[in-house]
Amino acid sequence: MADPLPRAVTRLIDELARLPTIGPKTAQRLAFFLLRASSSQAQTLGRAVASLHDGIVTCGQCRNYADAEPCTICADGERNAALLCVVEDPLDLAAIENSGGFAGRYHVLHGAISPLEGIGPDDLTIDLLLERVARGAVGEVIVATNATIEGDATAMEIGQRLRGQPVRVTRLARGLATGGDIEYVDAATIAQALEGRREL
Amino acid sequence: MADPLPRAVTRLIDELARLPTIGPKTAQRLAFFLLRASSSQAQTLGRAVASLHDGIVTCGQCRNYADAEPCTICADGERNAALLCVVEDPLDLAAIENSGGFAGRYHVLHGAISPLEGIGPDDLTIDLLLERVARGAVGEVIVATNATIEGDATAMEIGQRLRGQPVRVTRLARGLATGGDIEYVDAATIAQALEGRREL
Repeated sequence: MADPLPRAVTRLIDELARLPTIGPKTAQRLAFFLLRASSSQAQTLGRAVASLHDGIVTCGQCRNYADAEPCTICADGERNAALLCVVEDPLDLAAIENSGGFAGRYHVLHGAISPLEGIGPDDLTIDLLLERVARGAVGEVIVATNATIEGDATAMEIGQRLRGQPVRVTRLARGLATGGDIEYVDAATIAQALEGRREL
Repeated sequence: MADPLPRAVTRLIDELARLPTIGPKTAQRLAFFLLRASSSQAQTLGRAVASLHDGIVTCGQCRNYADAEPCTICADGERNAALLCVVEDPLDLAAIENSGGFAGRYHVLHGAISPLEGIGPDDLTIDLLLERVARGAVGEVIVATNATIEGDATAMEIGQRLRGQPVRVTRLARGLATGGDIEYVDAATIAQALEGRREL
């Protein structure tokens, strides 16, 4: 039985289905959307994908992906070099940056400790973080790993490795999310919100 | 505030978020997956997208997308030219073809009548279907539009337009899906399964 779809369509469906969150049906929908779209629209997207790696570097200081070395945040002399915020990945960094609530610098771990996935401390950029702290300019390390088992394990590891260093090590507060209705909040979060309660 | 992500990443996230079923969060996940993948993997996908339209033609007979004109199905002399299966789109054709249960030819409407979306009979390839039937080689038109309001409206329109032609017009059976548990089947399907009941 011959394939009833053109070769280029079948090839694209196969390639798309390899991506995370994209199943075979979504891959088909996307391929036909692009086929019905103009050729130039497909070319624009295709070039954005194909040239993604061109010119992207990893910043030697914070290890974030960047257009140049050092990245714009590390190169910004206005930012507080004594405050170092440690995140799991660049999207966490972007979320904190977009909150507008932080004017220090960052360190990107590129993952979190996860024995199940075979990711240990040595697979992250913890050694580089220790080197940065050892250079002496950092006064506080804010560990902003995710509020997950992996994020907690990573935070504990960083806390242990920094013990004895003349640096304050903190973690993001746990509690109710803004707009959260207590009725629908999970028990672990309520317990942490109670434990971390503050004077009115 | 400077964009904390490299320009190429931001551009790709914007392009991906324009696709159907892909929200901003999925676009971010996909972009970072491709950034962590090898450059050649991103290039392979990018080229498959960019070159999608190259060399794809619309078959002059069945209106399916194809590598050549006529398509392999229309060019196949072994297939029964007297049986014509009318489908909404190429993925429906592929599903019927992959079922292995049909050895005739196809006609692709490229959509279904939908007043809500502003799609009328003239936006489909119904005129071309009538021309094919008028040429006289077709003995039966099997309308295989979806079992939806739009598919039903399209089937009715085709039935009316073919009235008086020396051709049998049929529709796919409605009833229980194979493996279906009657307990969980919707009322409309059960009613249609009863109505279409057959001798054991």
